[in-house]
Amino acid sequence: MTREAVIDSRQEILRTAARLFQQRGYDATSMNDVAAALKLSKGGLYHHFQGKDEILFEIMNHAMEITQERVLAPVRGIADPEDRLRALIRRHIEVVLSPRDREITVMLHENHPLPPTLRKRINARKKEYVHFVRDLIAEVQRSRHAKSAVTPRAAAFALLGMINWIYQWYKPEGELQANNLIPQFTDLFLGGILA
Amino acid sequence: MTREAVIDSRQEILRTAARLFQQRGYDATSMNDVAAALKLSKGGLYHHFQGKDEILFEIMNHAMEITQERVLAPVRGIADPEDRLRALIRRHIEVVLSPRDREITVMLHENHPLPPTLRKRINARKKEYVHFVRDLIAEVQRSRHAKSAVTPRAAAFALLGMINWIYQWYKPEGELQANNLIPQFTDLFLGGILA
Repeated sequence: MTREAVIDSRQEILRTAARLFQQRGYDATSMNDVAAALKLSKGGLYHHFQGKDEILFEIMNHAMEITQERVLAPVRGIADPEDRLRALIRRHIEVVLSPRDREITVMLHENHPLPPTLRKRINARKKEYVHFVRDLIAEVQRSRHAKSAVTPRAAAFALLGMINWIYQWYKPEGELQANNLIPQFTDLFLGGILA
Repeated sequence: MTREAVIDSRQEILRTAARLFQQRGYDATSMNDVAAALKLSKGGLYHHFQGKDEILFEIMNHAMEITQERVLAPVRGIADPEDRLRALIRRHIEVVLSPRDREITVMLHENHPLPPTLRKRINARKKEYVHFVRDLIAEVQRSRHAKSAVTPRAAAFALLGMINWIYQWYKPEGELQANNLIPQFTDLFLGGILA
Protein backbone atom coordinates (compact mmCIF):
# COMPACT_ATOMS: atom_id res chain seq x y z
CA MET A 1 0.00 0.00 0.00
CA THR A 2 1.13 3.55 -0.63
CA ARG A 3 1.47 5.90 2.28
CA GLU A 4 -1.72 7.70 1.13
CA ALA A 5 -3.70 4.46 1.06
CA VAL A 6 -2.56 3.66 4.61
CA ILE A 7 -3.67 7.10 5.81
CA ASP A 8 -6.99 6.73 4.00
CA SER A 9 -7.74 3.38 5.52
CA ARG A 10 -6.81 4.59 9.01
CA GLN A 11 -9.18 7.53 8.59
CA GLU A 12 -11.92 5.28 7.29
CA ILE A 13 -11.52 3.04 10.34
CA LEU A 14 -11.71 6.04 12.67
CA ARG A 15 -14.81 7.37 10.93
CA THR A 16 -16.61 4.04 11.03
CA ALA A 17 -15.62 3.38 14.64
CA ALA A 18 -16.79 6.87 15.68
CA ARG A 19 -20.17 6.23 14.06
CA LEU A 20 -20.56 2.86 15.81
CA PHE A 21 -19.49 4.31 19.18
CA GLN A 22 -22.21 6.94 18.87
CA GLN A 23 -24.90 4.57 17.70
CA ARG A 24 -24.29 1.75 20.16
CA GLY A 25 -22.11 3.25 22.85
CA TYR A 26 -18.36 2.84 23.22
CA ASP A 27 -18.52 -0.08 25.66
CA ALA A 28 -21.12 -1.98 23.66
CA THR A 29 -19.01 -1.78 20.49
CA SER A 30 -16.36 -4.47 20.13
CA MET A 31 -13.31 -4.62 17.89
CA ASN A 32 -15.22 -7.38 16.08
CA ASP A 33 -18.10 -4.96 15.40
CA VAL A 34 -15.69 -2.38 13.99
CA ALA A 35 -13.95 -4.98 11.81
CA ALA A 36 -17.30 -6.34 10.56
CA ALA A 37 -18.63 -2.88 9.67
CA LEU A 38 -15.48 -2.29 7.61
CA LYS A 39 -15.54 -5.79 6.10
CA LEU A 40 -12.06 -6.27 7.56
CA SER A 41 -10.75 -9.34 9.33
CA LYS A 42 -10.05 -8.82 13.00
CA GLY A 43 -6.36 -9.28 12.18
CA GLY A 44 -6.63 -6.60 9.51
CA LEU A 45 -8.06 -4.18 12.06
CA TYR A 46 -5.38 -5.00 14.66
CA HIS A 47 -2.79 -4.36 11.97
CA HIS A 48 -3.82 -0.67 12.20
CA PHE A 49 -4.76 -0.27 15.86
CA GLN A 50 -3.75 -2.17 18.98
CA GLY A 51 -7.18 -1.89 20.53
CA LYS A 52 -10.29 0.15 21.22
CA ASP A 53 -8.47 2.60 23.50
CA GLU A 54 -6.07 3.44 20.72
CA ILE A 55 -8.96 3.93 18.28
CA LEU A 56 -10.78 6.26 20.68
CA PHE A 57 -7.59 8.22 21.30
CA GLU A 58 -6.91 8.52 17.58
CA ILE A 59 -10.49 9.71 16.94
CA MET A 60 -10.08 12.46 19.54
CA ASN A 61 -6.64 13.31 18.27
CA HIS A 62 -7.94 13.52 14.71
CA ALA A 63 -10.74 15.83 15.94
CA MET A 64 -8.10 18.13 17.42
CA GLU A 65 -6.15 18.02 14.15
CA ILE A 66 -9.28 19.02 12.26
CA THR A 67 -9.69 21.97 14.65
CA GLN A 68 -6.03 22.86 14.19
CA GLU A 69 -6.18 22.75 10.40
CA ARG A 70 -9.57 24.26 9.77
CA VAL A 71 -9.92 26.76 12.61
CA LEU A 72 -6.60 27.75 14.16
CA ALA A 73 -4.22 27.66 11.21
CA PRO A 74 -6.39 29.76 8.84
CA VAL A 75 -7.20 32.46 11.42
CA ARG A 76 -3.66 32.98 12.74
CA GLY A 77 -2.79 35.09 9.71
CA ILE A 78 -5.66 37.58 10.19
CA ALA A 79 -4.20 40.85 11.43
CA ASP A 80 -7.23 42.54 13.00
CA PRO A 81 -8.15 40.83 16.30
CA GLU A 82 -11.91 41.28 15.89
CA ASP A 83 -11.80 39.88 12.36
CA ARG A 84 -9.71 36.98 13.70
CA LEU A 85 -12.29 36.25 16.40
CA ARG A 86 -15.18 36.46 13.94
CA ALA A 87 -13.37 34.04 11.62
CA LEU A 88 -12.67 31.67 14.51
CA ILE A 89 -16.36 31.60 15.54
CA ARG A 90 -17.47 31.00 11.96
CA ARG A 91 -14.92 28.28 11.30
CA HIS A 92 -15.50 26.50 14.59
CA ILE A 93 -19.27 26.42 13.95
CA GLU A 94 -18.62 25.13 10.44
CA VAL A 95 -16.52 22.26 11.80
CA VAL A 96 -19.21 21.38 14.35
CA LEU A 97 -21.87 21.37 11.61
CA SER A 98 -19.78 19.59 8.98
CA PRO A 99 -21.62 16.37 8.06
CA ARG A 100 -18.31 14.80 7.09
CA ASP A 101 -16.52 15.48 10.37
CA ARG A 102 -19.33 15.55 12.91
CA GLU A 103 -18.90 11.87 13.76
CA ILE A 104 -15.28 12.52 14.61
CA THR A 105 -15.52 15.85 16.42
CA VAL A 106 -18.52 14.92 18.57
CA MET A 107 -16.41 12.20 20.20
CA LEU A 108 -14.38 14.92 21.94
CA HIS A 109 -17.37 15.52 24.22
CA GLU A 110 -17.78 11.95 25.33
CA ASN A 111 -16.32 11.24 28.70
CA HIS A 112 -15.32 7.71 27.92
CA PRO A 113 -12.61 6.37 30.13
CA LEU A 114 -9.25 6.68 28.37
CA PRO A 115 -5.95 5.56 29.92
CA PRO A 116 -4.45 8.52 31.85
CA THR A 117 -1.44 9.08 29.55
CA LEU A 118 -3.66 9.25 26.47
CA ARG A 119 -6.28 11.43 28.21
CA LYS A 120 -3.54 13.86 29.24
CA ARG A 121 -2.42 14.27 25.65
CA ILE A 122 -5.97 15.09 24.52
CA ASN A 123 -6.52 17.46 27.44
CA ALA A 124 -3.27 19.27 26.64
CA ARG A 125 -4.49 19.92 23.08
CA LYS A 126 -7.92 21.05 24.32
CA LYS A 127 -6.22 23.42 26.77
CA GLU A 128 -4.10 24.88 23.99
CA TYR A 129 -7.27 25.74 22.09
CA VAL A 130 -8.92 27.32 25.17
CA HIS A 131 -5.82 29.46 25.71
CA PHE A 132 -5.77 30.60 22.09
CA VAL A 133 -9.42 31.67 22.35
CA ARG A 134 -8.88 33.35 25.73
CA ASP A 135 -5.88 35.36 24.50
CA LEU A 136 -7.73 36.38 21.36
CA ILE A 137 -10.71 37.62 23.40
CA ALA A 138 -8.33 39.62 25.61
CA GLU A 139 -6.79 41.18 22.51
CA VAL A 140 -10.21 42.11 21.09
CA GLN A 141 -11.29 43.67 24.39
CA ARG A 142 -8.04 45.66 24.59
CA SER A 143 -8.20 46.83 20.99
CA ARG A 144 -11.76 48.09 21.53
CA HIS A 145 -11.00 49.56 24.98
CA ALA A 146 -13.86 47.46 26.37
CA LYS A 147 -14.87 48.23 29.95
CA SER A 148 -16.54 44.81 30.30
CA ALA A 149 -16.26 42.93 33.60
CA VAL A 150 -16.36 39.66 31.65
CA THR A 151 -12.91 38.08 31.83
CA PRO A 152 -11.38 36.48 28.72
CA ARG A 153 -11.21 33.13 30.50
CA ALA A 154 -14.92 33.00 31.43
CA ALA A 155 -15.82 34.32 27.98
CA ALA A 156 -13.71 31.62 26.29
CA PHE A 157 -15.57 28.87 28.14
CA ALA A 158 -18.90 30.53 27.34
CA LEU A 159 -18.04 30.62 23.63
CA LEU A 160 -16.86 27.02 23.54
CA GLY A 161 -20.07 26.01 25.34
CA MET A 162 -22.30 27.89 22.87
CA ILE A 163 -20.56 26.28 19.91
CA ASN A 164 -19.81 22.78 21.17
CA TRP A 165 -23.37 22.43 22.48
CA ILE A 166 -24.82 22.88 18.98
CA TYR A 167 -24.68 19.14 18.32
CA GLN A 168 -27.22 18.64 21.12
CA TRP A 169 -30.03 20.57 19.44
CA TYR A 170 -29.09 21.19 15.80
CA LYS A 171 -31.26 19.60 13.14
CA PRO A 172 -30.18 19.90 9.50
CA GLU A 173 -33.85 20.42 8.58
CA GLY A 174 -34.53 22.89 11.44
CA GLU A 175 -35.17 26.62 11.15
CA LEU A 176 -31.75 27.63 12.51
CA GLN A 177 -29.23 26.93 9.77
CA ALA A 178 -25.50 27.71 9.66
CA ASN A 179 -26.03 30.85 7.60
CA ASN A 180 -28.18 32.51 10.24
CA LEU A 181 -26.72 30.75 13.27
CA ILE A 182 -23.18 32.04 12.59
CA PRO A 183 -24.03 35.77 12.49
CA GLN A 184 -26.34 35.48 15.50
CA PHE A 185 -23.83 33.68 17.70
CA THR A 186 -21.13 36.11 16.54
CA ASP A 187 -23.28 39.17 17.38
CA LEU A 188 -24.32 37.76 20.72
CA PHE A 189 -20.79 36.91 21.75
CA LEU A 190 -19.14 40.13 20.56
CA GLY A 191 -21.95 42.15 22.09
CA GLY A 192 -21.38 40.28 25.33
CA ILE A 193 -17.64 40.79 25.62
CA LEU A 194 -17.70 44.41 24.42
CA ALA A 195 -20.82 45.60 26.28
CA MET B 1 -41.92 0.77 54.20
CA THR B 2 -43.45 4.21 54.43
CA ARG B 3 -44.03 6.18 51.25
CA GLU B 4 -41.10 8.47 52.19
CA ALA B 5 -38.74 5.53 52.62
CA VAL B 6 -39.76 4.18 49.22
CA ILE B 7 -39.07 7.56 47.58
CA ASP B 8 -35.74 7.82 49.41
CA SER B 9 -34.56 4.41 48.30
CA ARG B 10 -35.61 5.09 44.69
CA GLN B 11 -33.62 8.33 44.74
CA GLU B 12 -30.63 6.59 46.28
CA ILE B 13 -30.74 3.97 43.53
CA LEU B 14 -30.88 6.68 40.84
CA ARG B 15 -27.98 8.58 42.39
CA THR B 16 -25.79 5.47 42.69
CA ALA B 17 -26.68 4.27 39.19
CA ALA B 18 -25.91 7.72 37.74
CA ARG B 19 -22.49 7.69 39.39
CA LEU B 20 -21.70 4.20 38.05
CA PHE B 21 -22.90 5.10 34.54
CA GLN B 22 -20.52 8.05 34.52
CA GLN B 23 -17.57 6.17 35.94
CA ARG B 24 -17.84 3.02 33.85
CA GLY B 25 -20.16 3.93 30.99
CA TYR B 26 -23.83 3.01 30.69
CA ASP B 27 -23.30 -0.13 28.64
CA ALA B 28 -20.51 -1.45 30.81
CA THR B 29 -22.64 -1.13 33.97
CA SER B 30 -24.94 -4.07 34.66
CA MET B 31 -28.00 -4.29 36.94
CA ASN B 32 -25.76 -6.56 39.05
CA ASP B 33 -23.21 -3.76 39.42
CA VAL B 34 -25.91 -1.31 40.52
CA ALA B 35 -27.35 -3.81 43.01
CA ALA B 36 -23.88 -4.62 44.40
CA ALA B 37 -22.97 -0.94 44.85
CA LEU B 38 -26.19 -0.48 46.84
CA LYS B 39 -25.73 -3.73 48.77
CA LEU B 40 -29.11 -4.81 47.40
CA SER B 41 -30.04 -8.21 46.01
CA LYS B 42 -30.76 -8.22 42.30
CA GLY B 43 -34.40 -9.02 43.21
CA GLY B 44 -34.47 -6.02 45.53
CA LEU B 45 -33.32 -3.77 42.70
CA TYR B 46 -35.84 -5.20 40.23
CA HIS B 47 -38.53 -4.55 42.83
CA HIS B 48 -37.94 -0.82 42.16
CA PHE B 49 -37.00 -0.76 38.47
CA GLN B 50 -37.77 -3.11 35.61
CA GLY B 51 -34.38 -2.64 34.02
CA LYS B 52 -31.53 -0.34 33.08
CA ASP B 53 -33.62 1.58 30.52
CA GLU B 54 -36.12 2.48 33.20
CA ILE B 55 -33.33 3.60 35.55
CA LEU B 56 -31.77 5.80 32.87
CA PHE B 57 -35.16 7.29 32.02
CA GLU B 58 -35.90 7.97 35.71
CA ILE B 59 -32.50 9.63 36.18
CA MET B 60 -33.20 11.97 33.27
CA ASN B 61 -36.74 12.56 34.45
CA HIS B 62 -35.48 13.36 37.93
CA ALA B 63 -32.98 15.82 36.42
CA MET B 64 -35.86 17.60 34.69
CA GLU B 65 -37.81 17.68 37.97
CA ILE B 66 -34.82 19.26 39.70
CA THR B 67 -34.75 21.92 36.96
CA GLN B 68 -38.49 22.42 37.32
CA GLU B 69 -38.37 22.80 41.10
CA ARG B 70 -35.17 24.76 41.52
CA VAL B 71 -35.08 26.92 38.37
CA LEU B 72 -38.49 27.31 36.74
CA ALA B 73 -40.88 27.33 39.70
CA PRO B 74 -38.99 29.94 41.77
CA VAL B 75 -38.47 32.37 38.88
CA ARG B 76 -42.04 32.31 37.52
CA GLY B 77 -43.19 34.68 40.26
CA ILE B 78 -40.62 37.39 39.46
CA ALA B 79 -42.45 40.29 37.84
CA ASP B 80 -39.62 42.10 36.05
CA PRO B 81 -38.47 40.12 32.97
CA GLU B 82 -34.80 41.06 33.29
CA ASP B 83 -34.76 40.10 36.98
CA ARG B 84 -36.48 36.84 36.02
CA LEU B 85 -33.82 36.08 33.41
CA ARG B 86 -30.99 36.93 35.82
CA ALA B 87 -32.51 34.62 38.44
CA LEU B 88 -32.90 31.84 35.86
CA ILE B 89 -29.25 32.08 34.82
CA ARG B 90 -28.09 32.07 38.46
CA ARG B 91 -30.30 29.17 39.47
CA HIS B 92 -29.49 27.08 36.41
CA ILE B 93 -25.75 27.50 37.03
CA GLU B 94 -26.27 26.59 40.68
CA VAL B 95 -28.02 23.36 39.70
CA VAL B 96 -25.22 22.47 37.26
CA LEU B 97 -22.59 23.11 39.95
CA SER B 98 -24.49 21.44 42.81
CA PRO B 99 -22.28 18.60 44.09
CA ARG B 100 -25.40 16.78 45.27
CA ASP B 101 -27.23 16.83 41.94
CA ARG B 102 -24.44 16.92 39.40
CA GLU B 103 -24.40 13.15 39.00
CA ILE B 104 -28.07 13.24 38.12
CA THR B 105 -28.23 16.33 35.91
CA VAL B 106 -25.12 15.52 33.87
CA MET B 107 -26.88 12.38 32.59
CA LEU B 108 -29.19 14.62 30.55
CA HIS B 109 -26.29 15.25 28.19
CA GLU B 110 -25.46 11.66 27.51
CA ASN B 111 -26.79 10.39 24.25
CA HIS B 112 -27.37 6.88 25.43
CA PRO B 113 -29.91 4.97 23.44
CA LEU B 114 -33.29 5.10 25.19
CA PRO B 115 -36.42 3.40 23.82
CA PRO B 116 -38.24 5.92 21.55
CA THR B 117 -41.31 6.40 23.79
CA LEU B 118 -39.13 7.22 26.80
CA ARG B 119 -36.80 9.44 24.78
CA LYS B 120 -39.80 11.38 23.49
CA ARG B 121 -40.97 12.12 27.02
CA ILE B 122 -37.55 13.48 28.02
CA ASN B 123 -37.27 15.50 24.83
CA ALA B 124 -40.71 17.02 25.43
CA ARG B 125 -39.60 18.24 28.86
CA LYS B 126 -36.33 19.60 27.47
CA LYS B 127 -38.28 21.42 24.76
CA GLU B 128 -40.59 22.97 27.36
CA TYR B 129 -37.54 24.42 29.10
CA VAL B 130 -36.06 25.79 25.86
CA HIS B 131 -39.39 27.46 25.07
CA PHE B 132 -39.60 29.04 28.51
CA VAL B 133 -36.09 30.49 28.11
CA ARG B 134 -36.80 31.64 24.55
CA ASP B 135 -40.02 33.43 25.55
CA LEU B 136 -38.33 35.06 28.52
CA ILE B 137 -35.50 36.36 26.31
CA ALA B 138 -38.08 37.78 23.89
CA GLU B 139 -39.82 39.53 26.78
CA VAL B 140 -36.54 41.02 28.05
CA GLN B 141 -35.62 42.26 24.57
CA ARG B 142 -39.09 43.83 24.14
CA SER B 143 -39.08 45.46 27.55
CA ARG B 144 -35.70 47.04 26.82
CA HIS B 145 -36.61 47.95 23.23
CA ALA B 146 -33.51 46.04 22.10
CA LYS B 147 -32.57 46.45 18.45
CA SER B 148 -30.49 43.25 18.52
CA ALA B 149 -30.53 40.97 15.48
CA VAL B 150 -30.06 38.00 17.82
CA THR B 151 -33.30 36.00 17.86
CA PRO B 152 -34.65 34.64 21.16
CA ARG B 153 -34.40 31.10 19.82
CA ALA B 154 -30.72 31.29 18.88
CA ALA B 155 -30.00 33.12 22.14
CA ALA B 156 -31.79 30.43 24.18
CA PHE B 157 -29.61 27.71 22.67
CA ALA B 158 -26.51 29.83 23.23
CA LEU B 159 -27.40 30.29 26.90
CA LEU B 160 -28.14 26.61 27.45
CA GLY B 161 -24.83 25.77 25.77
CA MET B 162 -22.85 28.18 27.97
CA ILE B 163 -24.41 26.76 31.12
CA ASN B 164 -24.74 23.07 30.30
CA TRP B 165 -21.16 22.98 29.04
CA ILE B 166 -19.80 24.02 32.43
CA TYR B 167 -19.50 20.39 33.56
CA GLN B 168 -16.91 19.85 30.82
CA TRP B 169 -14.36 22.29 32.23
CA TYR B 170 -15.37 23.26 35.77
CA LYS B 171 -13.04 22.28 38.59
CA PRO B 172 -14.19 22.90 42.17
CA GLU B 173 -10.63 23.97 43.01
CA GLY B 174 -10.20 26.10 39.86
CA GLU B 175 -10.02 29.90 39.67
CA LEU B 176 -13.52 30.33 38.20
CA GLN B 177 -15.97 29.69 41.03
CA ALA B 178 -19.75 30.03 41.07
CA ASN B 179 -19.60 33.46 42.71
CA ASN B 180 -17.64 35.00 39.86
CA LEU B 181 -18.87 32.72 37.10
CA ILE B 182 -22.53 33.66 37.64
CA PRO B 183 -22.14 37.45 37.28
CA GLN B 184 -19.77 37.06 34.30
CA PHE B 185 -22.04 34.72 32.35
CA THR B 186 -25.02 36.94 33.23
CA ASP B 187 -23.25 40.10 32.01
CA LEU B 188 -22.01 38.41 28.85
CA PHE B 189 -25.41 37.04 27.95
CA LEU B 190 -27.45 40.16 28.75
CA GLY B 191 -24.86 42.31 26.96
CA GLY B 192 -25.18 39.98 23.97
CA ILE B 193 -28.97 40.01 23.65
CA LEU B 194 -29.34 43.73 24.38
CA ALA B 195 -26.38 45.03 22.36
